[in-house]
Amino acid sequence: MSAGWFRRRFLPGEPLPAPRPPGPRASPVPYRRPRFLRGSSSSPGAADASRRPDSRPVRSPARGRTLPWNAGYAEIINAEKSEFNEDQAACGKLCIRRCEFGAEEEWLTLCPEEFLTGHYWALFDGHGGPAAAILAANTLHSCLRRQLEAVVEGLVATQPPMHLNGRCICPSDPQFVEEKGIRAEDLVIGALESAFQECDEVIGRELEASGQVGGCTALVAVSLQGKLYVANAGDSRAILVRRDEIRPLSFEFTPETERQRIQQLAFVYPELLAGEFTRLEFPRRLKGDDLGQKVLFRDHHMSGWSYKRVEKSDLKYPLIHGQGRQARLLGTLAVSRGLGDHQLRVLDTNIQLKPFLLSVPQVTVLDVGQLELQEDDVVVMATDGLWDVLSNEQVAWLVRSFLPGNQEDPHRFLKLAQMLIHSTQGKEDSPTEEGQVSYDDVSVFVIPLHSQGQESSGH
Amino acid sequence: MSAGWFRRRFLPGEPLPAPRPPGPRASPVPYRRPRFLRGSSSSPGAADASRRPDSRPVRSPARGRTLPWNAGYAEIINAEKSEFNEDQAACGKLCIRRCEFGAEEEWLTLCPEEFLTGHYWALFDGHGGPAAAILAANTLHSCLRRQLEAVVEGLVATQPPMHLNGRCICPSDPQFVEEKGIRAEDLVIGALESAFQECDEVIGRELEASGQVGGCTALVAVSLQGKLYVANAGDSRAILVRRDEIRPLSFEFTPETERQRIQQLAFVYPELLAGEFTRLEFPRRLKGDDLGQKVLFRDHHMSGWSYKRVEKSDLKYPLIHGQGRQARLLGTLAVSRGLGDHQLRVLDTNIQLKPFLLSVPQVTVLDVGQLELQEDDVVVMATDGLWDVLSNEQVAWLVRSFLPGNQEDPHRFLKLAQMLIHSTQGKEDSPTEEGQVSYDDVSVFVIPLHSQGQESSGH
Repeated sequence: MSAGWFRRRFLPGEPLPAPRPPGPRASPVPYRRPRFLRGSSSSPGAADASRRPDSRPVRSPARGRTLPWNAGYAEIINAEKSEFNEDQAACGKLCIRRCEFGAEEEWLTLCPEEFLTGHYWALFDGHGGPAAAILAANTLHSCLRRQLEAVVEGLVATQPPMHLNGRCICPSDPQFVEEKGIRAEDLVIGALESAFQECDEVIGRELEASGQVGGCTALVAVSLQGKLYVANAGDSRAILVRRDEIRPLSFEFTPETERQRIQQLAFVYPELLAGEFTRLEFPRRLKGDDLGQKVLFRDHHMSGWSYKRVEKSDLKYPLIHGQGRQARLLGTLAVSRGLGDHQLRVLDTNIQLKPFLLSVPQVTVLDVGQLELQEDDVVVMATDGLWDVLSNEQVAWLVRSFLPGNQEDPHRFLKLAQMLIHSTQGKEDSPTEEGQVSYDDVSVFVIPLHSQGQESSGH
Repeated sequence: MSAGWFRRRFLPGEPLPAPRPPGPRASPVPYRRPRFLRGSSSSPGAADASRRPDSRPVRSPARGRTLPWNAGYAEIINAEKSEFNEDQAACGKLCIRRCEFGAEEEWLTLCPEEFLTGHYWALFDGHGGPAAAILAANTLHSCLRRQLEAVVEGLVATQPPMHLNGRCICPSDPQFVEEKGIRAEDLVIGALESAFQECDEVIGRELEASGQVGGCTALVAVSLQGKLYVANAGDSRAILVRRDEIRPLSFEFTPETERQRIQQLAFVYPELLAGEFTRLEFPRRLKGDDLGQKVLFRDHHMSGWSYKRVEKSDLKYPLIHGQGRQARLLGTLAVSRGLGDHQLRVLDTNIQLKPFLLSVPQVTVLDVGQLELQEDDVVVMATDGLWDVLSNEQVAWLVRSFLPGNQEDPHRFLKLAQMLIHSTQGKEDSPTEEGQVSYDDVSVFVIPLHSQGQESSGH
């Protein structure tokens, strides 16, 4: 996986960029101390708070090469775990156009002017090479815009109409069963879910066509109509930090957190394990000596533990093995949701991982309009490299220590993001426990909420 | 379904009672105003707080007949929705014996004396007749005791051993993968999960053998080793009420709350719908005029809503239809977890409901030892009849209004349970909104937590 703090701006109506071949699959390289690649700064039209005077050419997260398609700028840190940077990020304005319908009830015009405007931030943490993460950073915002444009009529209604074109055909009969009350935010959640799936399909096609492999996690925040939507598929994390509150806005999807779903799938489709793995969970891998003994185990329907007598089939490699950072699905993958991985197989076998992976995100909604916002209320989004060494409380402590004393600094949110990344590198003033250093790449967005009400800005 | 406030005491080592034929399947009868059947009181050895001087013969929840097997007493209210009372309850001491092992590592002795003592409260809300609820009230505690006795060695260890007999065979290699830390409470959760499933199998066999039908929800609270375990399969509810806190201890399982699991199953096994139902959710049932229109819908992978063009197959009856109290699975059942229903089919078809129902409960754990308990801290367990008309906040308000002024009354928890039931009957002093009357049966347990630390008692 890889590291970067990285910004990109999308122009209104910008077409889906042609996917850029991300180069050959990275082969893992031995760990070296992080090297800080510094690009720069702010794109025209980006938030004042992060605007910097210099405007040097953007450096790509992939070993500092210039991104030909990039309309934005990057601030990069790379742990050099792999040859190419596997963390990718994107942010920008989300410009949603309105469709007009003709007599045939088909789209006639896509009005060129913006109809609804939102903001979009995304982090993608790649594995097996940067290809999927780069494709996702190039693609997902366009998928989302298309999905939102397809339901925009419902988004701006008090309540999304049962029929898309607003025609009230055969209304519900309240005496029988009343029509369910769907909210506009349900359509945004649906659009995010569909966009992730569409993007996953695009990645699958593009990687197959170019003979490449890989996958990535995806964490997306969208500010739209006074609400912040956080969609997560993977092990990145977003939290809200306020003066008196720390609120998780996402939940990690790993082989451990999705154990029951994964075991359930293997129960329904045992052929997915090809007789090579055991579906059951044990406190450790069983050995020959355990045969015939009664040992602790869990199956798909169990939250608690029980004992069973060990049979020969229980000695197979476990479907989910290890715990915490070491937990692996089929001995291979540390996450259970994300994009890509269509070709991923267990080493030296034909056993596919994709059937166990979900591309659909979990979406949480923060009603920003309902919060009594303070100047220093922020959302911190970061890849797992940050959260492996800093707890939510430690990140909140850093936010609260830094922001109040720097209220005049127009770059304070940018500097806070940099400072959070530095804190994972084992510096003396770091709040991490002694010896806690992130060997993973780290990407951080700090999103100030105060400006979302007036003019949205991304950092 | 049915109503009762009902207590039963289990003797140590009591064998599984022979199931009592519960009579023919109840046919629904028109609603009549609730009639209050009054039995009495407290069984020898039950908690002081509910002991009453008179000790009249117990009245059965089934139309007031005497229960021949019953070692306890009942306080009953019956809404007379159906011929036989479909709510059943059970409570008592849970006496767990210790096993001793011989040379063959098989059980040799089941030491007759108690080894661990807990307390057990259970509510079962039946449907399609009282048979399943009665069987569950007679059976589940025995299943649970057996399951706990099978793991008792692990329950009393600091940490349950990997191997049941405490023999450390081929220990884990921490350098490779450290053994997972399982807690004693994980074994209790596992025992509850297994007990519910075992009980479900017993009910299936017994009902088939006696040519009867029906199912029931199950809500169980177990006080053991300073913790309160609440296991729920259905739409009953338990909450903790303290002076400054209301904490839900269970979550309802209905076709609405388990929509995604149920739709997912229909996606994997479409044959379960026999071509008669549509898996998709719409805001209301579609009609012929909707054909070809774009309407709101949700599938198994979606939390949000989107639009789709209506096809002919979308006009079928929905797998889950209606909302709130009216929501039905396959047009038939209002709950998605519970015991029994092995023979239940959609009216006039061969479509089974059982594949969609889970018997496994969700278990929450309340660490009573960690609470700074006050005299008036209680857990309120009740069937859906109570929660349909009283919110958690209204119940807490009633608890907090009643208990402090009645600290000297030894029957105050009993009276509180009665008062909660009365509050659902539209009395003038009821806190329910005007016209809010429960047409369902109602069963309530009030469990004082303060006594759990010293001597456990059930009310």
